[in-house]
Amino acid sequence: MPPIVGVIGGGQLARMMIPRAIELGIELRVLAEGAGMSAQLAATAVGDYTDAATVLAFARDVDVITFDHEHVPQDVLTQLVDAGVAVHPGPVPLAVAQDKILMRYELSRLGLPVPVWASVATAAELDEFLLANGGRVVVKTPHGGYDGKGVRVVSDSSEVADWFDAGAPLLAEELVSFTRELAQLAARSPRGEVALWPVVESVQQDGVCAEVIAPAPSITDSLTEAAAAIARTVADELGVTGVLAVELFETTDGRLLINELAMRPHNSGHWTMDGAITSQFEQHLRAVLDLPLGATDARSPWTVMINVLGGPASGTIADRYPAAFANQPTAKFHEYGKAPRPGRKVGHVNVSGDDLDDVMYRARAAATILTD
Amino acid sequence: MPPIVGVIGGGQLARMMIPRAIELGIELRVLAEGAGMSAQLAATAVGDYTDAATVLAFARDVDVITFDHEHVPQDVLTQLVDAGVAVHPGPVPLAVAQDKILMRYELSRLGLPVPVWASVATAAELDEFLLANGGRVVVKTPHGGYDGKGVRVVSDSSEVADWFDAGAPLLAEELVSFTRELAQLAARSPRGEVALWPVVESVQQDGVCAEVIAPAPSITDSLTEAAAAIARTVADELGVTGVLAVELFETTDGRLLINELAMRPHNSGHWTMDGAITSQFEQHLRAVLDLPLGATDARSPWTVMINVLGGPASGTIADRYPAAFANQPTAKFHEYGKAPRPGRKVGHVNVSGDDLDDVMYRARAAATILTD
Repeated sequence: MPPIVGVIGGGQLARMMIPRAIELGIELRVLAEGAGMSAQLAATAVGDYTDAATVLAFARDVDVITFDHEHVPQDVLTQLVDAGVAVHPGPVPLAVAQDKILMRYELSRLGLPVPVWASVATAAELDEFLLANGGRVVVKTPHGGYDGKGVRVVSDSSEVADWFDAGAPLLAEELVSFTRELAQLAARSPRGEVALWPVVESVQQDGVCAEVIAPAPSITDSLTEAAAAIARTVADELGVTGVLAVELFETTDGRLLINELAMRPHNSGHWTMDGAITSQFEQHLRAVLDLPLGATDARSPWTVMINVLGGPASGTIADRYPAAFANQPTAKFHEYGKAPRPGRKVGHVNVSGDDLDDVMYRARAAATILTD
Repeated sequence: MPPIVGVIGGGQLARMMIPRAIELGIELRVLAEGAGMSAQLAATAVGDYTDAATVLAFARDVDVITFDHEHVPQDVLTQLVDAGVAVHPGPVPLAVAQDKILMRYELSRLGLPVPVWASVATAAELDEFLLANGGRVVVKTPHGGYDGKGVRVVSDSSEVADWFDAGAPLLAEELVSFTRELAQLAARSPRGEVALWPVVESVQQDGVCAEVIAPAPSITDSLTEAAAAIARTVADELGVTGVLAVELFETTDGRLLINELAMRPHNSGHWTMDGAITSQFEQHLRAVLDLPLGATDARSPWTVMINVLGGPASGTIADRYPAAFANQPTAKFHEYGKAPRPGRKVGHVNVSGDDLDDVMYRARAAATILTD
């Protein structure tokens, strides 16, 4: 019998696990939120991931449960574990991923570098934090934010009055002065094996990852080592299993600060699908099954990943393939089976090569044809 | 609506198209011969590919019909075409692939280099051919042979008496004196675009492809050009669409002779899944949909593909993953979802790198762990 991996959530991350599962002869079963999701092809069940009975029924007969997202409630996770199901990542690390305030507490406890932060329960507390941090800070809702949602830069507590009304506390952070954003992708297996991909630079637009350059250009050895040490500490100390993405600021004074953690395959790792010996999706499957991890070396000096945001103004991505394929024969196209909608991630493009300027040009040209 | 490709046949070649179809957002539908085939995940229908009504029903609503194998009868193919279905490759080139005698006629007509051959209808004709060709020749059944089946080296016509009894004519060929076997993989789209991958060396064991080295070591420029010209002529003149594999002998006197043709993705091209910018499976999908073809450059100086024949002596391939993954972290494993059976192709391993000896060592080590 092949190993069976159950994935909760039918989005593009689950979808991109399917090819690697097919190649390795792993049976992938997806619990999708509804019909017609990205991971439809492997959706053996449709149901509500917040309902313990639904999730427990789905988990019957699988070797391990893993995730397309980090939103499965803690009580569902603990019921799975209590029922003897292997769950990777487990409830403890996922609790940290689910709560940005808990995440800051834990990272601080581990002595890892984070922006100056505070948990603010009232407008008065936020005003105090503003006063102490230059009058302009970042405020985040602790739960459920992603892709720039749940994040505001504010100069006055009134700008997040609606969030306080909806429920405190909020996370307040200094506005970090940074030169660029980096990401350290890692994978850790239950037995404790850790593998690290090269550090990448990620370029955000409107709070959404737009481009990733692998490896991060001109990164110093000391920052490379620092990023590796951070990811290794997070993975080991929080007991993360599967893929872990650590989003980092490179500050104007040359330090690294942790921005966010993701305990699943991550947009900053999509370049690995074509640019690394082992992709993050294959590695995630290996890790959650506690199989030895694959080599994470880059296959080319440079790989650039560009998100296809929103899709074409008319028609579908596939309608643009004749033009895009003809224009960029070296580009690798990845489509998520999602209807185009402004700002929505509907696919990405990877291009690899020896010259970064050339690789970047080709990747942007390919992505532009899909979105114009 | 995404493009829809219908594949007749549910073997490992259809299976290996699924990952690339998912990535490109192409809907793949497979007509499988039965339940539990390699391409099970995309098997939207199960039925007999020799039954025209079954195939016509399957072909409804697809954009193009293509194949996992070359065995669909001509009358079924022509009924598809008559019904207005796009069929790639079409009945005319497939007729050549289906009949080794017709293949030799056509290749000779095109002036392409083939072994000395004859269509022999009787034992007396074969004896005459034996006399003229050194007393030891190759005899092949014109239909249905593969992986060494339907091929015998004989010194006397009595050695194929059973084949004559079952139906003449047979194909007789000189026993070629060759230093090695090469393969030129190509793809051609209906509009006539042709893409060629690097020429590879293939190593056969007991008539079955065992190893492929990409590119063919120390191949001369003139043989490289000759192989390309042969594949281009075959593809253009026979109107092949999709992937074409031309298996070649490099003779002891430095010529190329065509051994076999395959008009589908082919074992000699499995290295492209990890070793080329565009794999043969992605290229086949692009070609049959008449989309522009992808770049065929190698991603590494060397890639070695080794077939996993028969599988492990006990248990499944997946049982060997802990040992194989730990031993060879750079190896890419491909499993076909088939029960192990002596000599059966149940998977393959690809390894890429800068040093051929090292790449070969790693590939063999990985494959050995899966089969010992």
